[in-house]
Amino acid sequence: MARLVMKFGGTSVGSIERMEKVAHLVNCEVDAGHQVAVVVSAMAGETDRLIALVDEASGKRRDGPLNRAEYDAVVATGEQVSSGLVALTLRRLGVEARSWAGWQLPIATDGAHGSARILDIDPALLTAALDAGSVAVITGFQGITSDRRVTTLGRGGSDTSAVAVAAALKADRCDIYTDVDGVYTTDPRIVQSARKLDKISYEEMLEMASLGAKVLQTRSVELAMVHKVPLRVVSSFVDNPDHTAGTLVCDEDEIMENQIVSGITYSRDEARVNLLQVQDKPGVAATIFGALADANINVDMIVQNVSRSATQTNMTFTVKESDLGQAIAVLEAKRDAIGYTDLTSDSKVAKVSVVGVGMRSHAGTAKTMFDALAGKGINIQVISTSEIKISVLIDESYTELALRTLHAAYGLDALPG
Amino acid sequence: MARLVMKFGGTSVGSIERMEKVAHLVNCEVDAGHQVAVVVSAMAGETDRLIALVDEASGKRRDGPLNRAEYDAVVATGEQVSSGLVALTLRRLGVEARSWAGWQLPIATDGAHGSARILDIDPALLTAALDAGSVAVITGFQGITSDRRVTTLGRGGSDTSAVAVAAALKADRCDIYTDVDGVYTTDPRIVQSARKLDKISYEEMLEMASLGAKVLQTRSVELAMVHKVPLRVVSSFVDNPDHTAGTLVCDEDEIMENQIVSGITYSRDEARVNLLQVQDKPGVAATIFGALADANINVDMIVQNVSRSATQTNMTFTVKESDLGQAIAVLEAKRDAIGYTDLTSDSKVAKVSVVGVGMRSHAGTAKTMFDALAGKGINIQVISTSEIKISVLIDESYTELALRTLHAAYGLDALPG
Repeated sequence: MARLVMKFGGTSVGSIERMEKVAHLVNCEVDAGHQVAVVVSAMAGETDRLIALVDEASGKRRDGPLNRAEYDAVVATGEQVSSGLVALTLRRLGVEARSWAGWQLPIATDGAHGSARILDIDPALLTAALDAGSVAVITGFQGITSDRRVTTLGRGGSDTSAVAVAAALKADRCDIYTDVDGVYTTDPRIVQSARKLDKISYEEMLEMASLGAKVLQTRSVELAMVHKVPLRVVSSFVDNPDHTAGTLVCDEDEIMENQIVSGITYSRDEARVNLLQVQDKPGVAATIFGALADANINVDMIVQNVSRSATQTNMTFTVKESDLGQAIAVLEAKRDAIGYTDLTSDSKVAKVSVVGVGMRSHAGTAKTMFDALAGKGINIQVISTSEIKISVLIDESYTELALRTLHAAYGLDALPG
Repeated sequence: MARLVMKFGGTSVGSIERMEKVAHLVNCEVDAGHQVAVVVSAMAGETDRLIALVDEASGKRRDGPLNRAEYDAVVATGEQVSSGLVALTLRRLGVEARSWAGWQLPIATDGAHGSARILDIDPALLTAALDAGSVAVITGFQGITSDRRVTTLGRGGSDTSAVAVAAALKADRCDIYTDVDGVYTTDPRIVQSARKLDKISYEEMLEMASLGAKVLQTRSVELAMVHKVPLRVVSSFVDNPDHTAGTLVCDEDEIMENQIVSGITYSRDEARVNLLQVQDKPGVAATIFGALADANINVDMIVQNVSRSATQTNMTFTVKESDLGQAIAVLEAKRDAIGYTDLTSDSKVAKVSVVGVGMRSHAGTAKTMFDALAGKGINIQVISTSEIKISVLIDESYTELALRTLHAAYGLDALPG
């Protein structure tokens, strides 16, 4: 007997008909003798409908913790509805089940309404229910503060809820049922020879998730890594649960032979900013990035080059494309304090990254990347590296060519040995 | 300064635009220096939408407490949405407010899911919020059991919630905002000269409510009477709260001069059953009405007549029209045990009642009724009386004529002195 958490997203519970499919998958695990906790999102479209009502009622004022608390109280009902309906559907199909709202367990969070963090989940009630042979159907995406107000975790928070429940229950595995059948070496819509990975390490998945692969929320992977919860990404369109299907996100040492590079990701939501002939004196970087941080703008890649003059330097960095306008406004307002001569920007750029824990122990991984891109005449604008990742900024129009070229260069096209 | 509870039904909170009207009415009371707790229903249509989803998920199986508990968990979200949206609308208009779900206060109920009874409301959090100058927007229709499951009170339960909150808060008044402007001497759609009552006693309102006037739920009036909560029925279509508008339901001794008859009600949802030549022996009535009670059929008026034979009797009673088919089936199955010769029934009947606390101290009230009906050639089939009410069963087609005739006979057409 294993203890499993099964998480289903909004599309998977988008109608009672789809819930019957969910109930069938759950029933298969129960029939196999497993204890099952199910974590559900709101029915597809429901969260957006509720947010539209909140926006109309509040005049789109989400400022202030009290308004955000009401936002949470309203939006959290989406999962309360779907958890009750999934429990009823399970019961109709003969499976003992009951729904649990986040506040009933409780799932304790901090008070950051709209983007709360889970502090603790009390496993007592859940464990008792599972031991009594009942399937627990739990609302994803929400919890409760110490003063009994409902919170939501922010978009995609249901993955995080599922991993947190799995950690609290010391579950053997957390299965994330979704509309893709696993994690791929790269985007299969762009590279036809992309292959599904059977296993990937938490660290690699984290880089993949934060670099643009949309399969799992970064927060949920972080949480799974910390609590050592094996996480399986699997399609909800299968007829029977197959524990060898999908992709298992797990500890690095559970993967027999690591590839040097496991995957190649990209993001087009990037813009490059260049500040020319910045005063090269202590504190100038703090002035630039402090001002951007105050405006809530995340800066990603940063490169500082030597300028022609010894007292000046060129500064290049990237921000999200949607933040570019505000970033320029912030920097122009601080022009005197920073002391640059020119500000240029380009939003027609893309970031392409190769990710793999194997590159730690292999020299030459970067060289392979630079050679392959140069071979196709693709110019590298900015380079940024971490222990298990190399990212480059290139002209956006070369994105697909770069992905295909790198996928082949690292031998990912071939079938696994 | 007064402490007020204002209750708004589904139509009054049916859209954000309507909620703005609600917020305006609340704001007027706040501006006048009053403390205000608001109790809201779900947005019009929302409860029905949720019930349809529950029916689809459960295959309409509402049997078993666990299925009914899930029904409650899903359906209760309707008020959680509207309370959050009303709080946000109030805040947008500059009124301090927050939403409170039944489970947050908590509103403690028994475990009869779908038709729970309120056991207790803890006023501590509410009182603190009101004293701090915040409007409390509370979900109607719901509470929580001792084992933390959400319950609903059954249809119309929001009136009951409002009265219970008013009792817990020791509020000066509970104002029920609705789509009618008060309680009338009779149905104004039938009798044009019907007049709105300024005041009515709890006892009279109870008889009016249970006899077919649809203004207030019987349970809410009972609760108001027990806890001596003055209850005001008022239209939500007014621009400003006017404490002399609508109808005040209050203690009998607060009404200076009671009318002999305050109102005339009717119900067409009636059917008459006659059992002819029933064995007149001890226990036969228990056999008849025990069998009907076991089948969950409510019996209303009961008349037992002497038959031609000394050992036989005729038994006449009324049931709801919708229960007639099942009542006949039950009685035919018990034919041998009861021992009647014939069963006849008629669903084309109506019950007309005159209600008034003044009839306690006035002789001749019944005679006025019988004379007036006889004067129009209306035959009385069954008569039933209580201390403050006389009901007669008549041919349904005479309903309107009977109402107009009695309204005039008791002097209700005249303007109040």
